[in-house]
Amino acid sequence: MADMTGKVITCKAGVAYEPNKPLSFEDIHCAPPHPTEVRVKITNACICQSDLYFWKGKDTQKLFPRIMGHEGAGICESIGAQIKHIKPGDKCIPVWQCECTKCPKCKSNKTNICDTFMFNWGSGLMPSDKATTRFTRIEDGKPIYHFFGISVFSQYSTMDEACIAKINAKADLTKVCLLGCGIPTGVGSAWNICKVHSGSTVAVFGLGTIGLAVVEACKVSGCSKIIGVARDDGKLERGMDFGLTHTLNTKSYDKPIEEVIRTMTNGGVDYSFDCTGDPGVISSALECCVEWGGVSCILGLVESSQRVSFHPAALLWGRTWTSGLFGGYKGRSQLPELVDQCIAGRINLDHYITHKLPFSKIQEAFDLLNTGGCIRCVMDYES
Amino acid sequence: MADMTGKVITCKAGVAYEPNKPLSFEDIHCAPPHPTEVRVKITNACICQSDLYFWKGKDTQKLFPRIMGHEGAGICESIGAQIKHIKPGDKCIPVWQCECTKCPKCKSNKTNICDTFMFNWGSGLMPSDKATTRFTRIEDGKPIYHFFGISVFSQYSTMDEACIAKINAKADLTKVCLLGCGIPTGVGSAWNICKVHSGSTVAVFGLGTIGLAVVEACKVSGCSKIIGVARDDGKLERGMDFGLTHTLNTKSYDKPIEEVIRTMTNGGVDYSFDCTGDPGVISSALECCVEWGGVSCILGLVESSQRVSFHPAALLWGRTWTSGLFGGYKGRSQLPELVDQCIAGRINLDHYITHKLPFSKIQEAFDLLNTGGCIRCVMDYES
Ligand SMILES: NC(=O)c1ccc[n+]([C@@H]2O[C@H](COP(=O)([O-])OP(=O)(O)OC[C@H]3O[C@@H](n4cnc5c(N)ncnc54)[C@H](O)[C@@H]3O)[C@@H](O)[C@H]2O)c1
Ligand SMILES: NC(=O)c1ccc[n+]([C@@H]2O[C@H](COP(=O)([O-])OP(=O)(O)OC[C@H]3O[C@@H](n4cnc5c(N)ncnc54)[C@H](O)[C@@H]3O)[C@@H](O)[C@H]2O)c1
Ligand SMILES: [Zn+2]
Ligand SMILES: [Zn+2]
Ligand SMILES: [Zn+2]
Ligand SMILES: [Zn+2]
Repeated sequence: MADMTGKVITCKAGVAYEPNKPLSFEDIHCAPPHPTEVRVKITNACICQSDLYFWKGKDTQKLFPRIMGHEGAGICESIGAQIKHIKPGDKCIPVWQCECTKCPKCKSNKTNICDTFMFNWGSGLMPSDKATTRFTRIEDGKPIYHFFGISVFSQYSTMDEACIAKINAKADLTKVCLLGCGIPTGVGSAWNICKVHSGSTVAVFGLGTIGLAVVEACKVSGCSKIIGVARDDGKLERGMDFGLTHTLNTKSYDKPIEEVIRTMTNGGVDYSFDCTGDPGVISSALECCVEWGGVSCILGLVESSQRVSFHPAALLWGRTWTSGLFGGYKGRSQLPELVDQCIAGRINLDHYITHKLPFSKIQEAFDLLNTGGCIRCVMDYES
Repeated sequence: MADMTGKVITCKAGVAYEPNKPLSFEDIHCAPPHPTEVRVKITNACICQSDLYFWKGKDTQKLFPRIMGHEGAGICESIGAQIKHIKPGDKCIPVWQCECTKCPKCKSNKTNICDTFMFNWGSGLMPSDKATTRFTRIEDGKPIYHFFGISVFSQYSTMDEACIAKINAKADLTKVCLLGCGIPTGVGSAWNICKVHSGSTVAVFGLGTIGLAVVEACKVSGCSKIIGVARDDGKLERGMDFGLTHTLNTKSYDKPIEEVIRTMTNGGVDYSFDCTGDPGVISSALECCVEWGGVSCILGLVESSQRVSFHPAALLWGRTWTSGLFGGYKGRSQLPELVDQCIAGRINLDHYITHKLPFSKIQEAFDLLNTGGCIRCVMDYES
């Protein structure tokens, strides 16, 4: 393509117009970056369960029309006048868990939350002016909302500098696109948030991408028992490849699964992970970890109308309940390390990729994840 | 008194026969220790809110008749044949959060729970035989249940070796009796469980002994903002002496107190502590700590019929909810250090003692705490 620096690009995008309605795969306009922004040519992306969550309108805001997508990779196309950390041609991963590097939170080592993220989380607008979007409909020039600041379901996407991690030039974009959300969330929850270690016992509820990434990270850390909990045998069997040492199909037990786990582990596991977003599962995950010092980490997104209820005695003997976004990774400064670890083979990205589709078949990719038919389907934006 | 080694002692005790009914201050029999047990002459004790909790039958078991009391100090009177760590005449604190030193939990540094405690917690029986009590009624020889393994509301109490911490001979028993429960729970929740540090911001809900001990520990650690939350100005004013830097009377605000705190602290405190046991307060305490990395610690005991309900999004950005017993202190190996710190003046025990009464007036002491009339009332067992 000709040099489009400073110009509006017309490109394909998957636009969500209404909750639960098929995406419209259409031409849109993507404006060039403002001084503190970057425009990225997306080469590959996947659907994550959180896209479905917002697409289904399970959140409180229900912003439409919107270009979703937050797990992708690409190449820097052009940069705003003030951008220093990346240049056109560099490989990159757009990061919703962004890092401006300047706000008090970015300067703290206690959190990976950034003030820019806090704005991006709900607004659908660009943080540099807090008022406009860089996407418009061709037909009538009306704005299309951004998603988590990165909207990777577009061949080109303009984003704040906070939202872009420059990565190793050796990275294979058809694989590291997976590192935009699910895998760092799972791996980091085990490594950064819970700090599992050699000999730990763990239980993982839900074996989608996030759950499998938790399992793989626990295996890499040398955990001694890695118990997978799911509702079908196919997922449990697949989980064995990622590192499960024990499998539990909830449908095969009459009693609560937390009791089964406590019996198997002499009182409970050291760490448990909810990777489903189901309130009942979240309670079971808490109660399957040892009362004396167990840690339970909630990863799933729970529908806004639902709640979890518990008696605080469940924590009284020393349990800890925690959660976190993006596995505790700071997007710009720490994600590139994980990319390097994947290049080095510490985490195997290949076995998460069960399907491949051209970007034009994005609705098929949505349906695949929605019906549980895939782990990750990598979309190719050029085929 | 004559040497009673090996003999049954007749002594005064405050016996609870029914929920909420005044204690009976009567003569009872206290049997000599079995080989792994110790008999202690209690010299001083206080009432803690947890005594009231069980006395009111808020627990699920409602064991009666029972001799309660779990915050006291005394002198070792006689020992069983296998006892090595303490001898007659040694000063000691009976510890409900006991430490057998032999079970897998005692050998782990991840927890202060001990298998003996787990038995003592609910049974009311002696752990050495798991069947009998060392207290009997004089009238009919019927057993009287123990409480948390230590039952200090008796002039003599026989307990398992796991439940007895030998302390510094210089300790003043009329003061260190306070270290049997409330103060270690508060201090340890700040120091051991949350690990507050210089510059931390904290909020403390409920300013009874536990809350005040949290406040004092936070002050000693150099926390920069220590916000006290209570329902009456008297308690808040008193809290200033212990280290509060800000006071909030919930009755003076129309909006939720967590909002007030988040506004005062640019998003929320680093650490919050529930020292009330009220489900609504527990939720407020969670929501007043910063979403990005805040830690909320539940110390209060919640009535067994109540529950806490929340949306997991409250944790999603990186909050942690935790709890713990006895401030994370291991009773035998770590409490003696806290005694030494108090002797050295690091924690000031005097300002917790608002009342003194002879042991015979135990019901008056119960009523004082029950009506909120005291912080701690120290009972003297010899006057
Ligand atoms: N915390 C974060 O930063 C973050 C990031 C990405 C995704 N998420 C959330 O993590 C969760 C998992 O994401 P994913 O991409 O792996 O989704 P997924 O749909 O691929 O996997 C979820 C799995 O849980 C299983 N499951 C659902 N209910 C269950 C139940 N009651 N018992 C047992 N298994 C059950 C499903 O069958 C599925 O296999 C989602 O809620 C997603 O929104 C959180
Ligand atoms: N976790 C443990 O190991 C442990 C040990 C001892 C005691 N406890 C529990 O800790 C709690 C506090 O014990 P304590 O001895 O300090 O009790 P306390 O009764 O002396 O103090 C509790 C304070 O909370 C205040 N309070 C109650 N409801 C409130 C509300 N809605 N808003 C504001 N303030 C409120 C009361 O007015 C009182 O001042 C009790 O529930 C007790 O059972 C726990
Ligand atoms: Zn920032
Ligand atoms: Zn995601
Ligand atoms: Zn033990
Ligand atoms: Zn107590």
